[in-house]
Amino acid sequence: MLIGCLEGKDLITTQEWRVEEIEEVLKLAADVKKHPEEYSDVLSGRSLIMLFFNPSTRTRLSFEIGMTQLGGHAIYMPADSGWIGKGSESIKDTASVMARYGDAISIRIFPNVTGWNYGESNRVVREFARWADVPVINMECDMFHPCQALADIMTVKEKKGRLNGRKFLLSWVYHPKPLPCSVPNSALLIATRFGLDVTLLHPKGFELDEQIMEWARRNIEESGGSLEVTDSLEEAYDGADIVYVKAWGSLKYYGNPQEEKRLRVKFRDWTCNEELMELARKDAIFMHCLPIRRNVEATDGVIDGAHSVIYDEAENRLHVQKAVLMSVIST
Amino acid sequence: MLIGCLEGKDLITTQEWRVEEIEEVLKLAADVKKHPEEYSDVLSGRSLIMLFFNPSTRTRLSFEIGMTQLGGHAIYMPADSGWIGKGSESIKDTASVMARYGDAISIRIFPNVTGWNYGESNRVVREFARWADVPVINMECDMFHPCQALADIMTVKEKKGRLNGRKFLLSWVYHPKPLPCSVPNSALLIATRFGLDVTLLHPKGFELDEQIMEWARRNIEESGGSLEVTDSLEEAYDGADIVYVKAWGSLKYYGNPQEEKRLRVKFRDWTCNEELMELARKDAIFMHCLPIRRNVEATDGVIDGAHSVIYDEAENRLHVQKAVLMSVIST
Amino acid sequence: MLIGCLEGKDLITTQEWRVEEIEEVLKLAADVKKHPEEYSDVLSGRSLIMLFFNPSTRTRLSFEIGMTQLGGHAIYMPADSGWIGKGSESIKDTASVMARYGDAISIRIFPNVTGWNYGESNRVVREFARWADVPVINMECDMFHPCQALADIMTVKEKKGRLNGRKFLLSWVYHPKPLPCSVPNSALLIATRFGLDVTLLHPKGFELDEQIMEWARRNIEESGGSLEVTDSLEEAYDGADIVYVKAWGSLKYYGNPQEEKRLRVKFRDWTCNEELMELARKDAIFMHCLPIRRNVEATDGVIDGAHSVIYDEAENRLHVQKAVLMSVIST
Repeated sequence: MLIGCLEGKDLITTQEWRVEEIEEVLKLAADVKKHPEEYSDVLSGRSLIMLFFNPSTRTRLSFEIGMTQLGGHAIYMPADSGWIGKGSESIKDTASVMARYGDAISIRIFPNVTGWNYGESNRVVREFARWADVPVINMECDMFHPCQALADIMTVKEKKGRLNGRKFLLSWVYHPKPLPCSVPNSALLIATRFGLDVTLLHPKGFELDEQIMEWARRNIEESGGSLEVTDSLEEAYDGADIVYVKAWGSLKYYGNPQEEKRLRVKFRDWTCNEELMELARKDAIFMHCLPIRRNVEATDGVIDGAHSVIYDEAENRLHVQKAVLMSVIST
Repeated sequence: MLIGCLEGKDLITTQEWRVEEIEEVLKLAADVKKHPEEYSDVLSGRSLIMLFFNPSTRTRLSFEIGMTQLGGHAIYMPADSGWIGKGSESIKDTASVMARYGDAISIRIFPNVTGWNYGESNRVVREFARWADVPVINMECDMFHPCQALADIMTVKEKKGRLNGRKFLLSWVYHPKPLPCSVPNSALLIATRFGLDVTLLHPKGFELDEQIMEWARRNIEESGGSLEVTDSLEEAYDGADIVYVKAWGSLKYYGNPQEEKRLRVKFRDWTCNEELMELARKDAIFMHCLPIRRNVEATDGVIDGAHSVIYDEAENRLHVQKAVLMSVIST
Repeated sequence: MLIGCLEGKDLITTQEWRVEEIEEVLKLAADVKKHPEEYSDVLSGRSLIMLFFNPSTRTRLSFEIGMTQLGGHAIYMPADSGWIGKGSESIKDTASVMARYGDAISIRIFPNVTGWNYGESNRVVREFARWADVPVINMECDMFHPCQALADIMTVKEKKGRLNGRKFLLSWVYHPKPLPCSVPNSALLIATRFGLDVTLLHPKGFELDEQIMEWARRNIEESGGSLEVTDSLEEAYDGADIVYVKAWGSLKYYGNPQEEKRLRVKFRDWTCNEELMELARKDAIFMHCLPIRRNVEATDGVIDGAHSVIYDEAENRLHVQKAVLMSVIST
């Protein structure tokens, strides 16, 4: 029924899809999760070209297996930074030809590939989308990770049902490396879009991109949710329904890892542990996009504990991506 | 109807196929391009083993997606020079076992893998073909690129209909690297085979292999075409119906890049530009096998202009390869 | 009929499967070899995740093509040692998530990945099996290569029919590198399990793991075969029905290649040649798991001679693996 409902549409960030479009995809994802066998032929003979400027396990597996389960095929294509910039083939030529062969193109490109120039990797994805006549799906750039966001909101809905009035805590945690902001950006955008009461928790210096914050504030106006920013762990965890933890680097020192580290190590005790989870609601869920550094980002007790839904969340990547693929690929 | 018509046949160079065989494949390619859905099951359960001694985008994608669209599967197998020569497994053993598993083997191997010894990479492909009991397809060696040649002649036929009396210009252009001769060799052989009036344009010192020239001269005797060699740009472009540009290195300094460069840089203004295209016919087509170095091999104005058919040419790789696969693989 | 007969079962070593289970798989392998088309849909929509900590040709091709021929799909996932140990994702998390996506996981991990600590690579495979809710198949660790063992016994049965009373010679041969013991371990275990009269031939210092020897001795008690160990080439080859040659490194100097080499080079004339084969039975078969170093492990005369069944043996990898996949994967 919903198959092909968004034919030809790119997925660069959920923010550029209407809420109704996202709802349609989530409905389809729920159905394909329940009745996978009914969709086993939908993309028969169709090919997804997956460009990985950075290696991947979960994203690659969930896309490749998703295509297989829909009767299609996904091609793992490692790319390197030599594909971009002087002396390489133009993105126009690459994208135009790929669109003659494949039925969709998905791209992963982290900040390091484009020299830690915030937004530049996103621009590469958009340049592919500009020239390719087939849908382009963002598998995580330096700004967004829309498929993670879809899996996240699907998981919250499954576990919590009603979203209105639920406290969604998005918490910065420590990690030895300055990770990209794509996941927290996307989690913030989707949570505010769906009417959750969002608390964004991070130490000073780890503010998210102001453009993202601006969109988040606009989202709550439309969705009826709320947004609060704090650096108080106790206040943030208090009464939370959803505890979503993620490490990210400081934008102030973007591409400047030595100085960034001096700031970040001051907060190396920002670990999600059992005591903090005690402050949340009894039936709170603990979420993380994985991979997780155990006993650094969160303790084993939390990760393996009763609150944790991390494997369900990871599984939902498969289902939402199948729904996206079925919605945007021409059949 | 034509499926399996060349069962078991290797494709090392089009020169070793009869014109009627090539015509059959081109007919099948045209039909699979028009009615892809009618061929969606032809190679169901069949596997193509793709050995890439050198990385590839277009060739890999078009073969892998081609197999998928025919209901089969292609395996991307990166190989390295350690596969060849002392201390490695014999090609006899490798090829014999692969033929027990796969239904066809395709190979890409550039001159650098075999030490810039002209013809040696071709010998490796032939050694695989000798021992493998399944068809072996050349995905470009140091001498030939037969699938490109098939896509090229398919494109010329689509755009020009009648070939007799058409002026086909094969023009050397500048490129910062000494590229292999496989594409110009193959373009020359297929164009002379199909009765075109071929003009081969290159600066002195960039002569093609004498064996190839010999075959080309024999081809025109049989096909009724003609062959002229010149180093005059004006003369060559004048009245051309097809302008096919390609960079290649000088065979005189093969494997000797420093000396070769000294010769090549003298011709760094050999770029296909709008002024030259003005000399060609109004309805001339501009062809290139891609990837193209923009504003070096040809200007943006030409590449993106009205004459250019480069994306159609690239797309035809998919269709001719599907036709080859269906013709030679046992079903 | 036998499809799914061992649903959910891991294959770490054949030693942990009952003889009846192995017999079922071999029966299925024989049938799928004879009537492949009857099984072309059995694993439709199913995905095998293949983790390769070490590169592979034969194993990768036979698994990937096997899945294709059964209507499913196999994913080639190169892994590196960074996946194991401090700072990496826990195997619990990796395996748990993979089991949410794929229908089976297969793993190749050689001793070098885990620091030449005998048994440690096997422990990694077992750790994956512990956490993955889907079957885990060992594609060769530092101790076992069960799929090779299954292909080996299938080949012996095909060529010899009755196994009781047949002399199976497992002979060490020279190789310039200290190769792992997984293949000889597995060959010894399967041969003693199936009632063959096994002669294990190696120079002093190349004894196999005592635990393996212990299992082998227990096997012959149950199977009615016999086991003899010798360092006499003449005695060992005399009257052999099956000559199975393989190079392996000395466990005494495991992870100590310089010292190991000093011992090993003393036996660099331990090559299987025509004179030795003369001592075996006229209808003896020559086996090797491949790749083989020609004229080092065995002479061309033997490898290409009338006794050699190496390509049939390699082909049987495909059939036994298809049988294993159909037996253990939930359909």
